[in-house]
Amino acid sequence: MDIATLIGFVGGVAMILIGVFSSGGSVAGIFDVASVFVTVGGSYASLFICAPMNQAIGIFRIIGRCFKRYNFGEKDTVQLMVSLSERARREGILALEDMLGDLNDPFLKEGLSMMVDGHDGAQIRAILENEMAQAEARHMEWANVLIQWAGYAPGFGMMGTVIGLIGMLRNLEDKSRLGPNMAVALITTLYGSFLANWLLGPLANKLLWQNNREMNAKQMVLEGVLSIQTGDNPRVLATKLLTYLDPKTRAAISKDVLKD
Amino acid sequence: MDIATLIGFVGGVAMILIGVFSSGGSVAGIFDVASVFVTVGGSYASLFICAPMNQAIGIFRIIGRCFKRYNFGEKDTVQLMVSLSERARREGILALEDMLGDLNDPFLKEGLSMMVDGHDGAQIRAILENEMAQAEARHMEWANVLIQWAGYAPGFGMMGTVIGLIGMLRNLEDKSRLGPNMAVALITTLYGSFLANWLLGPLANKLLWQNNREMNAKQMVLEGVLSIQTGDNPRVLATKLLTYLDPKTRAAISKDVLKD
Amino acid sequence: MDIATLIGFVGGVAMILIGVFSSGGSVAGIFDVASVFVTVGGSYASLFICAPMNQAIGIFRIIGRCFKRYNFGEKDTVQLMVSLSERARREGILALEDMLGDLNDPFLKEGLSMMVDGHDGAQIRAILENEMAQAEARHMEWANVLIQWAGYAPGFGMMGTVIGLIGMLRNLEDKSRLGPNMAVALITTLYGSFLANWLLGPLANKLLWQNNREMNAKQMVLEGVLSIQTGDNPRVLATKLLTYLDPKTRAAISKDVLKD
Amino acid sequence: MDIATLIGFVGGVAMILIGVFSSGGSVAGIFDVASVFVTVGGSYASLFICAPMNQAIGIFRIIGRCFKRYNFGEKDTVQLMVSLSERARREGILALEDMLGDLNDPFLKEGLSMMVDGHDGAQIRAILENEMAQAEARHMEWANVLIQWAGYAPGFGMMGTVIGLIGMLRNLEDKSRLGPNMAVALITTLYGSFLANWLLGPLANKLLWQNNREMNAKQMVLEGVLSIQTGDNPRVLATKLLTYLDPKTRAAISKDVLKD
Amino acid sequence: MDIATLIGFVGGVAMILIGVFSSGGSVAGIFDVASVFVTVGGSYASLFICAPMNQAIGIFRIIGRCFKRYNFGEKDTVQLMVSLSERARREGILALEDMLGDLNDPFLKEGLSMMVDGHDGAQIRAILENEMAQAEARHMEWANVLIQWAGYAPGFGMMGTVIGLIGMLRNLEDKSRLGPNMAVALITTLYGSFLANWLLGPLANKLLWQNNREMNAKQMVLEGVLSIQTGDNPRVLATKLLTYLDPKTRAAISKDVLKD
Repeated sequence: MDIATLIGFVGGVAMILIGVFSSGGSVAGIFDVASVFVTVGGSYASLFICAPMNQAIGIFRIIGRCFKRYNFGEKDTVQLMVSLSERARREGILALEDMLGDLNDPFLKEGLSMMVDGHDGAQIRAILENEMAQAEARHMEWANVLIQWAGYAPGFGMMGTVIGLIGMLRNLEDKSRLGPNMAVALITTLYGSFLANWLLGPLANKLLWQNNREMNAKQMVLEGVLSIQTGDNPRVLATKLLTYLDPKTRAAISKDVLKD
Repeated sequence: MDIATLIGFVGGVAMILIGVFSSGGSVAGIFDVASVFVTVGGSYASLFICAPMNQAIGIFRIIGRCFKRYNFGEKDTVQLMVSLSERARREGILALEDMLGDLNDPFLKEGLSMMVDGHDGAQIRAILENEMAQAEARHMEWANVLIQWAGYAPGFGMMGTVIGLIGMLRNLEDKSRLGPNMAVALITTLYGSFLANWLLGPLANKLLWQNNREMNAKQMVLEGVLSIQTGDNPRVLATKLLTYLDPKTRAAISKDVLKD
Repeated sequence: MDIATLIGFVGGVAMILIGVFSSGGSVAGIFDVASVFVTVGGSYASLFICAPMNQAIGIFRIIGRCFKRYNFGEKDTVQLMVSLSERARREGILALEDMLGDLNDPFLKEGLSMMVDGHDGAQIRAILENEMAQAEARHMEWANVLIQWAGYAPGFGMMGTVIGLIGMLRNLEDKSRLGPNMAVALITTLYGSFLANWLLGPLANKLLWQNNREMNAKQMVLEGVLSIQTGDNPRVLATKLLTYLDPKTRAAISKDVLKD
Repeated sequence: MDIATLIGFVGGVAMILIGVFSSGGSVAGIFDVASVFVTVGGSYASLFICAPMNQAIGIFRIIGRCFKRYNFGEKDTVQLMVSLSERARREGILALEDMLGDLNDPFLKEGLSMMVDGHDGAQIRAILENEMAQAEARHMEWANVLIQWAGYAPGFGMMGTVIGLIGMLRNLEDKSRLGPNMAVALITTLYGSFLANWLLGPLANKLLWQNNREMNAKQMVLEGVLSIQTGDNPRVLATKLLTYLDPKTRAAISKDVLKD
Repeated sequence: MDIATLIGFVGGVAMILIGVFSSGGSVAGIFDVASVFVTVGGSYASLFICAPMNQAIGIFRIIGRCFKRYNFGEKDTVQLMVSLSERARREGILALEDMLGDLNDPFLKEGLSMMVDGHDGAQIRAILENEMAQAEARHMEWANVLIQWAGYAPGFGMMGTVIGLIGMLRNLEDKSRLGPNMAVALITTLYGSFLANWLLGPLANKLLWQNNREMNAKQMVLEGVLSIQTGDNPRVLATKLLTYLDPKTRAAISKDVLKD
């Protein structure tokens, strides 16, 4: 569970409610079903025009990913690559074949098995880099769906308000209904802005952050595999991979992996 | 038929209508011919200034393409390239000449026939990459026309409202007409925003997505052709091309193409 | 004459007039000399701060270019380069010297005369690519002047309205003048938005499009000249250059130039 | 202490207060606790959705860094690298090992100790460049958190105002409360805009500036270390490094370091 | 004196005054000291947060540079480089040493003296290119300060108006003061927009233009120096450098420098 996303999710709603109550309003006063249809429904409809079916429908699954905590395992990766490197130096590259079954990371497994199969370094690099580029392109497409949604939501919010205003202006007789009608008209503007600033925009950003971390971890694996294949000293490999860690994590494990 | 585009097209209108009816309005209340001229007509006129004649007129044909379902055939491409590769290994590159007639993809045909004609790899790559760059540039020009249109529409919507306000303010005597006149003035703002957020912006995005998929498929063909020419093992070729597929599709065919 | 620019020019005005008449206004009602000064004059004054004198003054000449039809001659270029290539193969590169006088395109002439003078390929490429980069940079500077103008115009429109409102608010006694004064104040907003969305933004875009086409044509000439110098087969040269054409144009001439 | 940040911090508040007092208002009149919750709290909640926990919480520590004065020591770096270079020429590269303990800059120490350990130039460059790229990526992530915050704050400010308006419109009976209620509603717009334009946007920019300076200093160290390893003349090294300084600083030390 | 900047400076003010007088206002009516503090002062305070002290203070000196006319001397550069090249061919590279004292351009002097000192071409290129990159980075930092300022000014203008509205709404009793108070509140919006659209935005653009011209001139010097070092024929050097000039300037001097 990515607690941060949950905190933001609940916190944003709470802050809005503080605003509602302090201005003498109520939850009922800012809730309106038709406004949900116009703002959320309308901007979601636009996603079907801007993206393929599977992305427009699958976006909720991706939103769910923002609530999940991922361990990109940069620290573990350094330690694992160093131990693989030591073993390869001691027992030869083919000795790594036995370890393939124990590894969880499919990216690492792919790299090692190509190495064991005798592919040359340039080929391994090209294939793994294309894996990364394709994964990143897929992540970007998902983030783009959210970015598009965040862009359309305030537009539909504004349209809802304009529609409400038009309805109100065409029927000005009942003066007592003017205020409430105008109030309802404004609700879509609130929803559109809330959706964009509290949910969709930030979620897109979290996807981009997750992608950055994942690509960093994959890059470490890539450099590690190629370093093992070249027959680098495990200490050299550790030096290379440590540069991918932030200073604190690096300090925590550098003694360990730079031992000999 | 790209059902998603249709769903978005219909869904967006439906959501707006929910807003209209819930605010006590009617379809007639938000329909105004002059407003269509100002918003749709005005912003469309701008396209003739910003683009050449054939693009300003042809944009409707391109919009039609967003309602058509394309099969970029990434899965089939892997299987086809592997079988071409196997044949080339067995019977030599020239044996592929007989197959040229059966192929549908002009890009693949062009690559293979250059190979059969004896062009070297660098030349084939240069020509095919220029094909891709030119195709992408054409797609980008079309998407840009839609992006421009999406940018001008809200501006003309706002202009229409300002014009309506000016007309109204110059003639304030008939108080009973104030509300309805103001309502009509706002209709252009609604149209401009709807056009941009529901149609033109999302359509531009779908064109960009179609382009990405097409370029990905072409890149696979390009790598495949060059791999065949180099005489790569079909298994190596399959490994390379599989990296272009998303994990699910890849899992579905990897056993098949990585057989031997 | 670029008819498209003219259509857009006239069409945009027509659509705005439909809006004016349908809202019961008149041309006189949205025309105001002082508003022209504030909006057009004010934003044009900003151009003198943001650009050098010759660009601020010369921008009208550049706007004129958007009304002119250019033939970038991509189709003719292929045919010309192929015939030059055939002659060079038959009679040697020096034979092209006689043809220099008959050529209109200064870029092609420059490339061929360097070739005839015996410059090597890398040098010809470097010089022609710098020609292209410099031409593109000049085009971009002009487009940027229009983009800046399009950016400032709505700002001055808004300023004019604020100034009008300030004047009106300081003098609220004469109630009968309130409406008309407010109407006049809004005219600058209309002008600013119209200028940006109907004229300046689209014109900048047309300049960028003209630049793209011109650079594409120059790239074809560059590749053609280098191909002739390398002594490529005219058929190979034609294959290369055809990739620069859109599919329709290509189909129209490919039989002709690929005759071999 | 970065006095500039402090001046801006205090100055911005002072200018706003001038505005408040000159319009006959008071500090109490623009202070509202609920508005702080909606604007600051709401946009801060969004940060938990858009960034990982440690960034959302740690952003205050990073804001603190903008109040701290850093000495990126570009001038000292030139002099230090020249003296290291002279020593290396006189006594050999290994003589630098004794100096490692006296150096403060961990980046320089890392470079020199790799050199002393006998790593080759390409490897040292690759590792140091990755150090720089990773440091820059971390800085960019922090700046991005501020940029996101600056983007959400005006949105929440606007939402607060809409919420206030809705509350007010639903309860129009007490005419005497209309003005004050509207006034309170506007306070969130003020806060959101102030937060973005006075604090968060500018702070993000200062982080980017600090990053630029730091990267420039690191680049100097990198070039210096590689220059020492290549055995460049100290004068050549000084010539190279001086190009990284602005003209004034350069003039101040060039005689000194170009002595020989 | 850059007359264009002056024309724009005076012209923009004049156009605004036309707007003021035509709407029945007066200079006094749009002048308000507190509004200057809020808008100009407030946004200037933000510069101290977003930039280092010396940039926040020095920005006025840089603004002054936009009123100064620079001669980037592209035409003279061609002629000078050709004559240097001719001399180097006749009398050897060392003969250029005597001319160093007569040259004004420090960039050219640096390049030539490195050449005379016997540095190799790659080293000269690396050092001169770093000089250019560092100069450009400094120019960009200054332009960025103006761009930031232009971005904050309308924000502070809007804040001033909101503050004025809040003050007015809290004190609605004196109806006769409503109009004038509202008028004063709007003045900051006017100032903020004027500052951004008439002054700060355009000035940033002029700095960018000056930078482009300066970099173009430096690039010519760089290519010229390297061409002299390689021992190119002066005619070849002239051909190369002429491509950096616009067609008109080029036509004016090409006969002269291509004499051979």
